[in-house]
Amino acid sequence: MAAPTLKDVALRAGVSVRTVSNVVNDYVYVADDTRARVQAAIDELGYRPNLLARNLKLGRTKMLALVVPELDVPYFAELARLIIHEARTAGYTVLIDQTDGDERRERELVTEDARGVNFDGVIASPLSLTEEALEGRRASAPVVLLGERLFAAGVDHVAIDNVRAAREATEYLFSLGRRRIAAIGVQHESTGTAKLRTIGFRGAFAAAGAVVDEDLLVEVGHYHREDGAAAMARLLDLPEPPDAVFCFSDLLALGAQRVALARGLSVPEDLAVIGFDDIEDGRYATPTLTTISPDKAVIARSAVRQLIARIDAADEAAEPAQSVQIEAPYRLVVRESTQGRISTGGS
Amino acid sequence: MAAPTLKDVALRAGVSVRTVSNVVNDYVYVADDTRARVQAAIDELGYRPNLLARNLKLGRTKMLALVVPELDVPYFAELARLIIHEARTAGYTVLIDQTDGDERRERELVTEDARGVNFDGVIASPLSLTEEALEGRRASAPVVLLGERLFAAGVDHVAIDNVRAAREATEYLFSLGRRRIAAIGVQHESTGTAKLRTIGFRGAFAAAGAVVDEDLLVEVGHYHREDGAAAMARLLDLPEPPDAVFCFSDLLALGAQRVALARGLSVPEDLAVIGFDDIEDGRYATPTLTTISPDKAVIARSAVRQLIARIDAADEAAEPAQSVQIEAPYRLVVRESTQGRISTGGS
Repeated sequence: MAAPTLKDVALRAGVSVRTVSNVVNDYVYVADDTRARVQAAIDELGYRPNLLARNLKLGRTKMLALVVPELDVPYFAELARLIIHEARTAGYTVLIDQTDGDERRERELVTEDARGVNFDGVIASPLSLTEEALEGRRASAPVVLLGERLFAAGVDHVAIDNVRAAREATEYLFSLGRRRIAAIGVQHESTGTAKLRTIGFRGAFAAAGAVVDEDLLVEVGHYHREDGAAAMARLLDLPEPPDAVFCFSDLLALGAQRVALARGLSVPEDLAVIGFDDIEDGRYATPTLTTISPDKAVIARSAVRQLIARIDAADEAAEPAQSVQIEAPYRLVVRESTQGRISTGGS
Repeated sequence: MAAPTLKDVALRAGVSVRTVSNVVNDYVYVADDTRARVQAAIDELGYRPNLLARNLKLGRTKMLALVVPELDVPYFAELARLIIHEARTAGYTVLIDQTDGDERRERELVTEDARGVNFDGVIASPLSLTEEALEGRRASAPVVLLGERLFAAGVDHVAIDNVRAAREATEYLFSLGRRRIAAIGVQHESTGTAKLRTIGFRGAFAAAGAVVDEDLLVEVGHYHREDGAAAMARLLDLPEPPDAVFCFSDLLALGAQRVALARGLSVPEDLAVIGFDDIEDGRYATPTLTTISPDKAVIARSAVRQLIARIDAADEAAEPAQSVQIEAPYRLVVRESTQGRISTGGS
């Protein structure tokens, strides 16, 4: 006769497999009476929670993979911290794979079972992953994607409204009386972040009845400080330089601001600067950086909870539900780089 | 009869198990004639390279774990990128575990086999791991530790000479004519980084025949921007504030510099600031940050190569060699926060 399984215990105790698992692993809070009932079922059936055997059987490891392009981009590092915290609270360990946006690496973890590691689920922020690869995925572990809804495929997403956020950032610069507003971060090949933020930027111009000066839209290869610095140098060499710049990331903005200051310009008097991401770096820069602040805590919590819900549903052999698109909030955070020095005391 | 193993193939081909593994996995360069010889042995023996079976048998996954306290501390993020790159070149995938310096999490990955994951080796930068835990480790995977040689135990380390580096940073401030030199980053409980850098700081005073003003040594809980900011605020509230500050990390320095600038001080005229780590952030700050720059590329390369040498030695059942202590170089990088604006063009 086969040894009793987790499922047998769950049936006997009248609880879900997840609840039995929680008791066995002692990971999360389980009500005392439920725990007692599960323990009684375990004793009656003679169930032996052999972690390794159970893992092999259920393919459950309580490990999640977080797939991000770049950890030295603080937005991802800050998000990773929040995701790790949320997952740990729910009894999961997160291991991080940095892909550099390499399509093969992204595909490996998101669409195939990683070699030697069984993750219960994957949270991924892909840069290069194609819709085809995603639709043809073989991996059994559920996936939640961060960032824009790039794919029609039935995959859960968590994102902010990038078009609206970019439009608000640009409208705010118009509201300051700026008229030669530049954008750093355009990527003509992009179908994701860059494209959506460019649409938002143009939308603000349309709403203001203004015409975009295409010379003020600067394409970049990456969203790093050095790309922002190079873009700003180009803009300042124009016959008519901008009086404001919307950078599609805080790193771009910090690079741009550095070049403006190094050339002797005053920020924001000569040039207002606004970024995107609200990384800590921008809160300690001089001047401090105005930015669009996505609610990273909500993004992390939504992604982890949605993923665990999928894992639980798979454990309980429930019908897979329709994919969900979760929209996280954001807000405009005004600091010195657009408003000037507010007081002498603070950051 | 048992199925032929990797070892059988290696014996037949007259090569190491590692070489057969390299051929089978197609990961790294193998000379054409060696590859042909291995392939011939595989064909003769009818060896079938079943990845999963082989992994279970040898416990080899070509996965390395990188255990770091905090990824939103850019020093670790930048180091992680370099380690991932080095490992990938050698055919290994790196997964990162962020521990927040939590002793239990560090112990789990460094001294026990992680649940559900078989790493071939571990590179760790522990904050809280005890010597006892390390000596009693059960895990079979080799470990290389980053940072100071904290332990007598037979574990490989890669580190810079923190005492000497801190002394040089402080002597440089003396050489600028500064006399009220503060230090931010002291941790009285520390046996590691903070302790060694404090020793170096005091060493420079002794060499200069100067007396340390204990009021100018500020203890911090963490090496984050906010800790540097709080420490600087305390120093500036002293009856006799410092004219220079050596911060034990760039993040501390950036927090300290922000507070000094926000209070209307000029850096470096009123206050010279020097950090430690040479993170990109400091190269784009205004003023740009003078710092001690550990050679992160050498640290990453040394750690990965040493770890792979240990893994290979284990594969080949060689006698474990004595533990090694690898010292990586560093240099003092002078920028605006101590030297003032050098030109109007650059960073």
